[in-house]
Amino acid sequence: MSATITHVHAQDIRFPTSRALDGSDAMNPAPDYSAAYVTLHTDHGPTGHGLTFTIGRGNELCVAAIDALAPLLVGHRLDDLFADMGAMWKRLTGDSQLRWLGPEKGVIHLAGAALVNAVWDLYGKREGKPVWRILADMTPEETVRLVDWTYLADALDPGEARERLEDKAAGRAARIAEMEAGGYPAYTTSAGWLGYSDDKMRALCEAAIADGWSHFKMKVGADITDDLRRAAILREAIGPERKLMMDANQVWSVDTAIANMKRLAAYEPWWIEEPTSPDDILGHGRIAREIAPIKVATGEHCHNAVMFKQFLQADALGFCQIDSCRLAGPNEIVGVLLLADKFGVPVCPHAGGVGLCEYVQHISIYDYVAVSGSLENRVLEYVDHLHEHFIDPVVMRDGHYMPPTAPGYSIEMKPDSLAAHRFPSGEAWTAMPAA
Amino acid sequence: MSATITHVHAQDIRFPTSRALDGSDAMNPAPDYSAAYVTLHTDHGPTGHGLTFTIGRGNELCVAAIDALAPLLVGHRLDDLFADMGAMWKRLTGDSQLRWLGPEKGVIHLAGAALVNAVWDLYGKREGKPVWRILADMTPEETVRLVDWTYLADALDPGEARERLEDKAAGRAARIAEMEAGGYPAYTTSAGWLGYSDDKMRALCEAAIADGWSHFKMKVGADITDDLRRAAILREAIGPERKLMMDANQVWSVDTAIANMKRLAAYEPWWIEEPTSPDDILGHGRIAREIAPIKVATGEHCHNAVMFKQFLQADALGFCQIDSCRLAGPNEIVGVLLLADKFGVPVCPHAGGVGLCEYVQHISIYDYVAVSGSLENRVLEYVDHLHEHFIDPVVMRDGHYMPPTAPGYSIEMKPDSLAAHRFPSGEAWTAMPAA
Repeated sequence: MSATITHVHAQDIRFPTSRALDGSDAMNPAPDYSAAYVTLHTDHGPTGHGLTFTIGRGNELCVAAIDALAPLLVGHRLDDLFADMGAMWKRLTGDSQLRWLGPEKGVIHLAGAALVNAVWDLYGKREGKPVWRILADMTPEETVRLVDWTYLADALDPGEARERLEDKAAGRAARIAEMEAGGYPAYTTSAGWLGYSDDKMRALCEAAIADGWSHFKMKVGADITDDLRRAAILREAIGPERKLMMDANQVWSVDTAIANMKRLAAYEPWWIEEPTSPDDILGHGRIAREIAPIKVATGEHCHNAVMFKQFLQADALGFCQIDSCRLAGPNEIVGVLLLADKFGVPVCPHAGGVGLCEYVQHISIYDYVAVSGSLENRVLEYVDHLHEHFIDPVVMRDGHYMPPTAPGYSIEMKPDSLAAHRFPSGEAWTAMPAA
Repeated sequence: MSATITHVHAQDIRFPTSRALDGSDAMNPAPDYSAAYVTLHTDHGPTGHGLTFTIGRGNELCVAAIDALAPLLVGHRLDDLFADMGAMWKRLTGDSQLRWLGPEKGVIHLAGAALVNAVWDLYGKREGKPVWRILADMTPEETVRLVDWTYLADALDPGEARERLEDKAAGRAARIAEMEAGGYPAYTTSAGWLGYSDDKMRALCEAAIADGWSHFKMKVGADITDDLRRAAILREAIGPERKLMMDANQVWSVDTAIANMKRLAAYEPWWIEEPTSPDDILGHGRIAREIAPIKVATGEHCHNAVMFKQFLQADALGFCQIDSCRLAGPNEIVGVLLLADKFGVPVCPHAGGVGLCEYVQHISIYDYVAVSGSLENRVLEYVDHLHEHFIDPVVMRDGHYMPPTAPGYSIEMKPDSLAAHRFPSGEAWTAMPAA
């Protein structure tokens, strides 16, 4: 007999990362990496787990929003949910009163992501497969049915999406074998946080080279003189061949972005990430035209597939950095992967946060196996923080993500970690209260 | 001595409007008009009031988000706040951790609107002026300082904005006198809700004509056959000269919007409102090109000034329908008014909801007096619901909004109304619980 969802439990989990300036950048000087963490309880069998990522204050709003959405799942049979995951997605994002709070953006969409992700985790556990493998084993027809095409079909017709997936079907088995042998290529952001000293940055950089990393990201945007000095240090440390990416975290105006990147061009950046407002599609388009051949990257704050559609239509995006919690789970992400493939733009997901590496490894491996079929200009962000709190953490080998093998979406956290970081009662917070 | 903000009190206020299908449309079949209602308490003198509008479930999230933002106001002296309202706005929208939940969109931005609106209400009460008059009495320099130009300056330089305001300064006094004599022209949405029967719609329409209305809006989008029938009824009822507007509330794809409007064109609509996703700037642009001379209108879900900037840059907007709670208060709205004026697009604010008519009368009157200086193609939405709950409700005369005269932002609700509609404990809800 099919199990039924009986209860949704949401928890406010926060890590006091601001104390060490991990994750510091020009827009976010002191983030406390946090998760609104969901457990889906059923009347028998495994539980499902999901989270949405925030950087501290306001995480309680995502927890409350999960509670507000929970009645849309409770009482549903798993067999019904898994038989039509597209309908599940529309129900969770389509409540007419809750939709007003977005639509499809902000707190309510972040909370939707936590729940959709949890349903996929449960789906994986029931099927005995990691989520990337469930996706990779779907027929093109089943894949297309995951996505709500209403607002996307003018850029990519679902029939064409199915044909594009069919064209890639023949090579899937070989690409799965390739991933299982060597993994998916990654880059590291761990060396370039803005709060780190020049010496700490240089030392981290040298260690990362020794570990086999070939792509390095630095934060810019607080002060152009500092940016130029830090870029020089990093370029010297990594040499002329390795890739250097820059990330301004939205602090520039369109004109400032263009002016500053013309100066930073001396250090040959591969991309500039979030040069201005994440909503400014046309602004990104102008920046992209004026600073070529440096590419523009954005996406961690791109709130839904309609926005990505336009970034692609406007030729405003050189790299598509989907976020597994900003978009509402695999359903919406698959739509963006298909759009990016049609427009010929590589997807390099955002992963700086807690749990995001665990999530996006599934997405990028699936993208390679079934959608893009290419690794050209593709690297997946990796940040070496907080993995110790997960039961099935990412496995890195020579700067590559090795495909997860455990059933589910790799996001279940250890009970001790949850207890210690529950906000505000966990010992991580009672031992040293928030500033 | 200047007063200081001592406490922010947020309440969950809901009206059970879904019981009569007031406000029903294709996307929102059963809204319960609601307000996350703020009271700013100070150590002496008047209190400030503000609200953000939602349509029911999830209103508690806006209340919680107001609580999360409140520490950014508590302890501040009013003199300091009023001396630099631009800095006040940046502080309320710029907390680095809370900003992650948007940025500048969704629940956190709606809550910011409630608080910014409440600060303006308090400012008006302290100055003894209605908010429209405070704005109208500002110098161009003071006005420009209200706005955060970071993401807008590529479309409108703040220096140019100041010059445009200076060009309009000479006529201000005459336009104030004109408004005080005859008011600002309005249109009515009260006849065309989707849940109303043909007979009810026809009767409401005839009554509205008798009251002097000349612009009528109908809801479309549930079924094109119904839309055509209802459009025929309305066009017949209002005759060939009066204006008919249509509102699809986002339910169409880009291609469906174009196809359906080509059919509905027979009834000579003046505008089609929200034809597709409110985020789809490029989609609106394509619709606008293909259905001309019918104009495209949108804005009630347009979440910030950066989005409006792009709608204007992309020639995607024939009418700019700002919302006084979706945008974060007068600061952000003034930026959009200035942008719309530069691009030559009339601003016709959204007002279907609770308290929105009370708010946007200030905005449109100010727009005429100080920014656009024109009434051409400008009408302000009016919905005849729920005004009885306000201490200083709108005053309509011959289809015109008469300028508010009481100090503040006209949004303070009656204590009895607040008590009766507090959710879920007020008698409006205990007498007949939500479905």
